Amino acid sequence: MRTVYVIGIGAGDPEHLTLQAVAAMNRADVFFTIDKGEAKGDLAALRATLLARHVTRPHRVVTARDPQRDRSAPSGRYPGAVAEWQERRAALYERMLADELADDGAGAFLVWGDPALYDGTLRILEQIRERGAVAFEVVSIPGISAVQALAAAHRIPLNRVGRPVTVTTGRRLADDGPPAGADDIVVMLDAVDAFAAVPADGWDIYWGAYLGTPDESLVHGPLEQVKGEIVRRRGELRARKGWIMDTYLLRRRER
Amino acid sequence: MRTVYVIGIGAGDPEHLTLQAVAAMNRADVFFTIDKGEAKGDLAALRATLLARHVTRPHRVVTARDPQRDRSAPSGRYPGAVAEWQERRAALYERMLADELADDGAGAFLVWGDPALYDGTLRILEQIRERGAVAFEVVSIPGISAVQALAAAHRIPLNRVGRPVTVTTGRRLADDGPPAGADDIVVMLDAVDAFAAVPADGWDIYWGAYLGTPDESLVHGPLEQVKGEIVRRRGELRARKGWIMDTYLLRRRER
Ligand SMILES: C[S@@+](CC[C@H](N)C(=O)[O-])C[C@H]1O[C@@H](n2cnc3c(N)ncnc32)[C@H](O)[C@@H]1O
Ligand SMILES: C[S@@+](CC[C@H](N)C(=O)[O-])C[C@H]1O[C@@H](n2cnc3c(N)ncnc32)[C@H](O)[C@@H]1O
Repeated sequence: MRTVYVIGIGAGDPEHLTLQAVAAMNRADVFFTIDKGEAKGDLAALRATLLARHVTRPHRVVTARDPQRDRSAPSGRYPGAVAEWQERRAALYERMLADELADDGAGAFLVWGDPALYDGTLRILEQIRERGAVAFEVVSIPGISAVQALAAAHRIPLNRVGRPVTVTTGRRLADDGPPAGADDIVVMLDAVDAFAAVPADGWDIYWGAYLGTPDESLVHGPLEQVKGEIVRRRGELRARKGWIMDTYLLRRRER
Repeated sequence: MRTVYVIGIGAGDPEHLTLQAVAAMNRADVFFTIDKGEAKGDLAALRATLLARHVTRPHRVVTARDPQRDRSAPSGRYPGAVAEWQERRAALYERMLADELADDGAGAFLVWGDPALYDGTLRILEQIRERGAVAFEVVSIPGISAVQALAAAHRIPLNRVGRPVTVTTGRRLADDGPPAGADDIVVMLDAVDAFAAVPADGWDIYWGAYLGTPDESLVHGPLEQVKGEIVRRRGELRARKGWIMDTYLLRRRER
């Protein structure tokens, strides 16, 4: 039986890697990577660093070209667009697994952050298993997510005592506003400055870009006071590097 | 200036430790531990294992007795009871930092899971800093949380495509039911089998106890079908070990 490791490598800092991840990397014969277009320089560089530093046995790296994804689709169509793109991705991954792994071989995907949070790899592998053409077992290795890197950088807990935390996307926040009853909200995948449209009154924000990397940038304060600064910095950083990776916590102030 | 590291050590598996955590552990002169009563055997054992395996420089371990906490307080009083207990804890920690750390010394707290999730250490240190009697800088090192260990054990993503995830407590779930609009809910700190009171119709549950340890126990399935089994197992495991550490994801089925 083939084994496919889905290994969380953390959210930017090579030292986010866990001992478990290092051990799993050293059981893989093949590393599968997808050429992602934007941000690929830095992602590929981190992956190469990790392989060079931590993998001590012979291994191959196989790279496939990511199918194009329609990111401009409006919110209503988003799940549909993602589903289509995942179909194409599944076919691609299936071929890679069949062609590149021996029947008892082990492959690995190195996944940004934690495989369980806004990452399609586990879902796509499940889809391939259901097709039934290639038999393999999946092992998921947790990794430090951007959410945790954000909290650590600001030295704050995510939750307040005995209270919930919600993790959501910028698109959701822009479409629906803050979820009812949610006072501590972590936002990922925000391409639209969704925080800037939240009724600023009564919220604090803890924002971080390129967390865990030398480009790390942090802002926190009352939303109404710092949102302009964050919008400006996002624009600047995106212009400078060509892409941005940022996340934030919105915390409703106690009344 | 003193430095206090708050280091997430993962949720049970010694291999959850990150390279960053290992490095931080090797910058500490003193490790502060709190004697926690229940579950202390296993927690203390994990801590001792990690120190023995990974800390290569001379260091001291200082243990204080945890102030008793009123866990029987009803839900409404819960924040109050926690606040009081945190006061007493703050005084205790303050004394430890003042007595045990040189002016430029480094101390560390090894925290279960991630310091940002349902853990009081960062909050208490902030309280001490505000008192102003001892000057120190806090460095928070993220760790694999039980939430991530749960998802990894079940090989599932926590979120569905483009949708939110809520993390909450068993007490909240028992008092208020599933949060409005939340279809993917991770529950921690459940002392009351709160899942069993959720209208079972239409939910799946992914449950895990002692995740990442040799006692790991997993159940998943439609809530109505498996909730009895989970209640029984919780009872059995708690009886056998004297304490239980478990968490679960409630996932509303697509209609
Ligand atoms: C496709 S999701 C992947 C999340 C990843 N699986 C994790 O656990 O962090 C990408 C989003 O994660 C966040 N993100 C990832 N790495 C980040 C970093 N180093 N700094 C800030 N945000 C980051 C951003 O919100 C970005 O839009
Ligand atoms: C006080 S909270 C601490 C959470 C921790 N900071 C983290 O990030 O996982 C303790 C709760 O975490 C969950 N938990 C911690 N370790 C666990 C494990 N190994 N297996 C299952 N649940 C665990 C349980 O819900 C438990 O009630």
